[in-house]
Amino acid sequence: MKQIADLSAGPACPIPITEYRSVLLAHGGGGKLTQQLIQKMFVSQFDNDMLRALHDGAVFPAGNMTFAFSTDSYVIKPIFFPGGDIGELAVNGTVNDLAMCGAKPLYLSSAFIIEEGLPMDDLWRIVLSMKGAAEAAGVRLVTGDTKVVDRGKGDGIFITTSGIGVVDPAAAIDPKNARPGDKIIVNGPIAVHGIAIMSVREGLEFETEIRSDTAPLNGLVERILKAGKDVHVLRDPTRGGVASAVNEIAQSSRQGILLKEEAIPISEDVRGACEILGFDPLYVANEGKLLAFVAPSSADLVLNEMRSHPLGKDAAIIGEVVGDHPGIALMKSRIGGTRVVDMLSGEQLPRIC
Amino acid sequence: MKQIADLSAGPACPIPITEYRSVLLAHGGGGKLTQQLIQKMFVSQFDNDMLRALHDGAVFPAGNMTFAFSTDSYVIKPIFFPGGDIGELAVNGTVNDLAMCGAKPLYLSSAFIIEEGLPMDDLWRIVLSMKGAAEAAGVRLVTGDTKVVDRGKGDGIFITTSGIGVVDPAAAIDPKNARPGDKIIVNGPIAVHGIAIMSVREGLEFETEIRSDTAPLNGLVERILKAGKDVHVLRDPTRGGVASAVNEIAQSSRQGILLKEEAIPISEDVRGACEILGFDPLYVANEGKLLAFVAPSSADLVLNEMRSHPLGKDAAIIGEVVGDHPGIALMKSRIGGTRVVDMLSGEQLPRIC
Repeated sequence: MKQIADLSAGPACPIPITEYRSVLLAHGGGGKLTQQLIQKMFVSQFDNDMLRALHDGAVFPAGNMTFAFSTDSYVIKPIFFPGGDIGELAVNGTVNDLAMCGAKPLYLSSAFIIEEGLPMDDLWRIVLSMKGAAEAAGVRLVTGDTKVVDRGKGDGIFITTSGIGVVDPAAAIDPKNARPGDKIIVNGPIAVHGIAIMSVREGLEFETEIRSDTAPLNGLVERILKAGKDVHVLRDPTRGGVASAVNEIAQSSRQGILLKEEAIPISEDVRGACEILGFDPLYVANEGKLLAFVAPSSADLVLNEMRSHPLGKDAAIIGEVVGDHPGIALMKSRIGGTRVVDMLSGEQLPRIC
Repeated sequence: MKQIADLSAGPACPIPITEYRSVLLAHGGGGKLTQQLIQKMFVSQFDNDMLRALHDGAVFPAGNMTFAFSTDSYVIKPIFFPGGDIGELAVNGTVNDLAMCGAKPLYLSSAFIIEEGLPMDDLWRIVLSMKGAAEAAGVRLVTGDTKVVDRGKGDGIFITTSGIGVVDPAAAIDPKNARPGDKIIVNGPIAVHGIAIMSVREGLEFETEIRSDTAPLNGLVERILKAGKDVHVLRDPTRGGVASAVNEIAQSSRQGILLKEEAIPISEDVRGACEILGFDPLYVANEGKLLAFVAPSSADLVLNEMRSHPLGKDAAIIGEVVGDHPGIALMKSRIGGTRVVDMLSGEQLPRIC
């Protein structure tokens, strides 16, 4: 077999068998192990500028335009959850990844991997939900694929969406562009999606149901980009939460990040659930949140514009970029101390998106 | 939950519960049931010209260029097989779908859904194989995603690749463009991939090992398009084989198709294996084959050009488009009779790609 023959003479696996003999759930958690896998296995082999940027999508010029291209698989469990379902999540997630590149999302593809035995009605609910989400985001689903695997070899349904968008020519959004002084703005309370999923899994009940924040952020991004030319980074803190997102940006930009705990919006319900479950909300996934890194001179303007949008009414400045401690994120706590906000190895919660 | 609330007032599932209460393996087989699912569930909801075309990818203009965009999930079992593996297949398959739109493939994305416990070395072999395939096809893998699902909720690894290509401005390739008189050219012996997989699964041994024909067809397509402007349709007969491909084209173009059995190239080994296994080679999947529908005036020229390419040296004219029996494919047998070449309900072989 030619590939196997090639391999026997090829480079050895960059993740030593003594460390990880096989793939763990944590390798998909969006934390340190995911980063290691991506860097050592994928970036090392498929080496190119676009992949190396570790943006939410690849950005490339073609003809007289610049495009963004992104893909994500959705394996969330359960597939229907308070506030949404896997179909809506799959559309919004890829729309948001494109928006985080400063792109206007245009076209999506959707590839379904269905486990034999999925109720036809569940598939139908998912399709209708994707349709609604695509309409809400103003994108068109133009191509797809359907595969079915034997019972016990999948888990209901997995959906992979990919998307293409056109990058705003005035935007220069890139995780490496964070600069000292940049204000970090979040568009609303964090940790909602993860807690919504976890409360279903654990059968927890709260006074009011905690519903996923899944939402298309492209409209909000359009408004942000219109407001200020000095937006340097956009990032949706999904798997691994705000903590992982700021760590990735600190590493990409080789700057330091300083968060202020008291400034980070979080609802009482979610805070309570995190305490009960023993979760740090900084690490809990969001699906309708973004972090905008904005030059200080434009920060108030962008903040006000965000607050005038339904998905940004609770926007807040939660920290800033600093020249000290490059590559590292710190947080000033309520009581005045400062702690390192590191990445976790895996994630607190598998199959969250 | 808003989606669920919407749904209760929404349209009923278009596949009646009395027919198919749940998704069957056959719904992913590329035959009639797949077609029904796609038409009734997806095309009806995500209605737009691009999706309705049921091309191998979506074709859209942007700026001063025209692009093709395609996606496919790969769930093949086993993941390593004679002649290739899931990684190589995932690259070649999407490269080929773009090429079948008359596009030069440029960029690929790759989304991995890994089952916890996949040996790290297997992942590495797959990555190296994808790298080799991308280099051979001249495409760049620019973005990706990695998810891990719990043991028993996946099957080793599933890979979804999506791709973007630039459509040759001189090409007008579309399944609806088949015209009476068009010659149907195949680039070599059929049914090889499916039999290679099946012989591994069944533990069959032949005098010489039957190896998958997986290959990137974009180089061959470039040569075809350079040779003749009168190429109307290109299609890679993967799931469901040549029979399903010609049926789809007969339906899209509302033309008839007439194949000549004796003209269809097939190796002795594959023919023998088909007889042993009870398979009709017309329905067996290919992964390195294409059908080109070419105006009669250009057919010999295109055939000769194909034969001068390593992946087309056994190219042959296997039939033609006719004005009679629109939407239906017939085949003239060796002994002179004519039979209908219908689509199967599902497929003979699940998890073939």
